[in-house]
Amino acid sequence: MKALILFGHGARDMRWREPFDRLAALWSQQIPSTPVELAFLELMEPSLENAIGLLCAKGATSITIVPVFFGQGGHLRNDFPVLLEACRRQYPDISLSATPAVGESETVLQAIVKFGIKHL
Amino acid sequence: MKALILFGHGARDMRWREPFDRLAALWSQQIPSTPVELAFLELMEPSLENAIGLLCAKGATSITIVPVFFGQGGHLRNDFPVLLEACRRQYPDISLSATPAVGESETVLQAIVKFGIKHL
Repeated sequence: MKALILFGHGARDMRWREPFDRLAALWSQQIPSTPVELAFLELMEPSLENAIGLLCAKGATSITIVPVFFGQGGHLRNDFPVLLEACRRQYPDISLSATPAVGESETVLQAIVKFGIKHL
Repeated sequence: MKALILFGHGARDMRWREPFDRLAALWSQQIPSTPVELAFLELMEPSLENAIGLLCAKGATSITIVPVFFGQGGHLRNDFPVLLEACRRQYPDISLSATPAVGESETVLQAIVKFGIKHL
């Protein structure tokens, strides 16, 4: 079974995660057959490792990880590949793949332009 | 004249800003009558203050600032209002307004869901 992880940075302020919770809820409404979990690089739970564990427990065998970051800096270029490799070693029977950061998506950028126009 | 600032966090890795540059380019193509500048909270230039200065020099009198952040944590709830207030004192003749973070936009979240579906 396929599953999805929305992977964000994390922050000290718990309210920071609200759009991530909303994102997971939108996903669950629209693609209920593909379980989704959030995961955070730091400061918030669950970690990537724990989110994979949660999805495994639901029967996931193939997990797509979507980095919900705009830019690809040190976190995605350095920290994330190391983390992903450690998770692959820990879950050798699970297929783990990662998409580019959502900031690479023209559709996402266009949605931001629309948001700016609306508020002009 | 109205103008727009796309305000991001900033990062050490210069490649981090690529989606921001793309965003500003999309804006300029689609709304060429409203000048746009990027601005960064830290680690990258220009600062918010300097971006406002650049737009003033182009004749802007009313500037909308779009925080290109997903979540609203300490940076947007604490640092940004202080920064905005300091900019208002520095540019008393410019009308400065700020939108919510782009992560509050349903259209942006929906675009991320679409991106996830495409990569499933």
